[in-house]
Amino acid sequence: MSASVNRQVLLAEKPSGKLSPSHFKLVDGKVPEPKDGEVLLRTRLISLDAANRAWMQGATYRAAVEANTVMAGGSISEVVSSKAPGFTTGDLIFADTGWQDYAALPAKHLIKVPKIEPMSYLLSVYGIAGLTAYFGLLNVGQPKEGNTVVVSAAAGSVGSIVGQIAKIKGCRTVGIAGGAEKCKWLTSELGFDAAVDYKNTALFKELKAAAPNGIDVYFDNVGGDIFETCLFQMNNRGRIACCGAVSQYDGAPSATGPRGVPGLIVVKRLVVQGFIVTDFNAERDKALADLQSWVASGKLKVQEDIINGIENTPQALIGLLNGENRGKRMVRV
Amino acid sequence: MSASVNRQVLLAEKPSGKLSPSHFKLVDGKVPEPKDGEVLLRTRLISLDAANRAWMQGATYRAAVEANTVMAGGSISEVVSSKAPGFTTGDLIFADTGWQDYAALPAKHLIKVPKIEPMSYLLSVYGIAGLTAYFGLLNVGQPKEGNTVVVSAAAGSVGSIVGQIAKIKGCRTVGIAGGAEKCKWLTSELGFDAAVDYKNTALFKELKAAAPNGIDVYFDNVGGDIFETCLFQMNNRGRIACCGAVSQYDGAPSATGPRGVPGLIVVKRLVVQGFIVTDFNAERDKALADLQSWVASGKLKVQEDIINGIENTPQALIGLLNGENRGKRMVRV
Repeated sequence: MSASVNRQVLLAEKPSGKLSPSHFKLVDGKVPEPKDGEVLLRTRLISLDAANRAWMQGATYRAAVEANTVMAGGSISEVVSSKAPGFTTGDLIFADTGWQDYAALPAKHLIKVPKIEPMSYLLSVYGIAGLTAYFGLLNVGQPKEGNTVVVSAAAGSVGSIVGQIAKIKGCRTVGIAGGAEKCKWLTSELGFDAAVDYKNTALFKELKAAAPNGIDVYFDNVGGDIFETCLFQMNNRGRIACCGAVSQYDGAPSATGPRGVPGLIVVKRLVVQGFIVTDFNAERDKALADLQSWVASGKLKVQEDIINGIENTPQALIGLLNGENRGKRMVRV
Repeated sequence: MSASVNRQVLLAEKPSGKLSPSHFKLVDGKVPEPKDGEVLLRTRLISLDAANRAWMQGATYRAAVEANTVMAGGSISEVVSSKAPGFTTGDLIFADTGWQDYAALPAKHLIKVPKIEPMSYLLSVYGIAGLTAYFGLLNVGQPKEGNTVVVSAAAGSVGSIVGQIAKIKGCRTVGIAGGAEKCKWLTSELGFDAAVDYKNTALFKELKAAAPNGIDVYFDNVGGDIFETCLFQMNNRGRIACCGAVSQYDGAPSATGPRGVPGLIVVKRLVVQGFIVTDFNAERDKALADLQSWVASGKLKVQEDIINGIENTPQALIGLLNGENRGKRMVRV
């Protein structure tokens, strides 16, 4: 590839309904020149996350992504050249470079990451996915040994780690996922005690059978009907860790919310708590040390889903929103 | 009144829609004989609470009230005779005697209360209402000085105290209540900074004007549309103390919940927490000491709404559910 071309995927149009390839456009831009205090980065691995879709809808914990700009997204990148102290050629960086080959960003927006192999672990188990699972389950969900923990989108990047950490902590672990194949994988490969297929119409009943003592901690990635089903099966003083609401991202906003709010929250004295991973930056080192030791001992299996080619990024996100991935999805640029 | 007759209000029929007088029946029962370990109580003041209606719908934090039994309800009562150690004639008791002149109850279900004047304060500011306001606001809501605190059903028994405690703690305090008269009372008599009439159709806009910096703590007594409106105006890291959902009690259960759940809980990193007052029994003495000192210094005004005659108890509850009371409603027997 010529270093004079910067392939960029633009959000050509903000979607009002379901996301499709026509909302994106691949263009050849220029390789930017870093200004003083900036660093030029070469993108290596782009992270795909359900939240990418939410960013198109409006401001969340970040500004909305606007039409005709480079699609936003986190990536692992390499420093090409630096006009900022503390960064040198070859450093590995996590940053919101967006979906493009090259980005010039101010040093203060960059997080230096260690050179580990495989590099993809920096986006999966040691990246936002792993840390989100760790903090969301342990700090927000606060499970106790013997508790029943239920996680939705359980075969996804975060959910697959949540369930495994819950097992490590001695909990009964139930995953909710789409399709019999994913469910089988959760129990046979990842050690979940049970898995429930939400595409099965008897979700309430199946979940009741899988969590016969009720739910103590529900780690919610999806919102909507699954949130409601779990809410009705929560035990007194249970905790719901609200991580995402992927069922609500791709299409028109829901006209209604789940039933039982706030009535069941009162009666069962639940704590329903939203969080994002950066809320827990202060405890990052301890979390990474735990994750590394679990990976090293084989207690935590890392599942990744890597697609090649920046031109495939739009379809990779669309597929993720449709639930086709297993584990952390990313694009190698 | 003859001591041989025990007037009792029965729940004659479980309501499926709105509660009406026809769901109750006044009968003359017998004065019960206390067994060993029991105490015979003479009811003095019956507490009326929105939760009474919820108890008719099914099991909550207590068993459901069944048809053709004495309607459940807390009261302040006097010990007539005792077959239990530690209780003597004339002692004042808080217990779930139900709506009747006399009840014989096991000693373990009784809470001895001090003889204070007026006795009604044992049901209002020093009773469940005052303690619910205190713990719900301070322990669950955790407001900081300068925060904006919004409370719904603000002219009710709990809400009127929540707002005043929030003021004592240096918060901007906004009440939501039904009707211009109640709203005026909140600001002119109880010191709320602003009050918003929910019967005004422009609730979202009016609340925005009354809480221009957003809401840090929302004390929810009502659920439904008002919960939703507040949820959309919460600040990041805000807290919602879920105390009740009176908008949902009297009629068929809502087919849907408030929009924005759990999406806004994630994005704003909210804590939405249900509680009931007995969760905080361990801190009761400190709470009562605070409440007493605020009442003594005039910082906390006590508003009560006392109706005479046990035969008026059904209508008193129906009126409360329609929002006709100001402050703590009770019936003098």
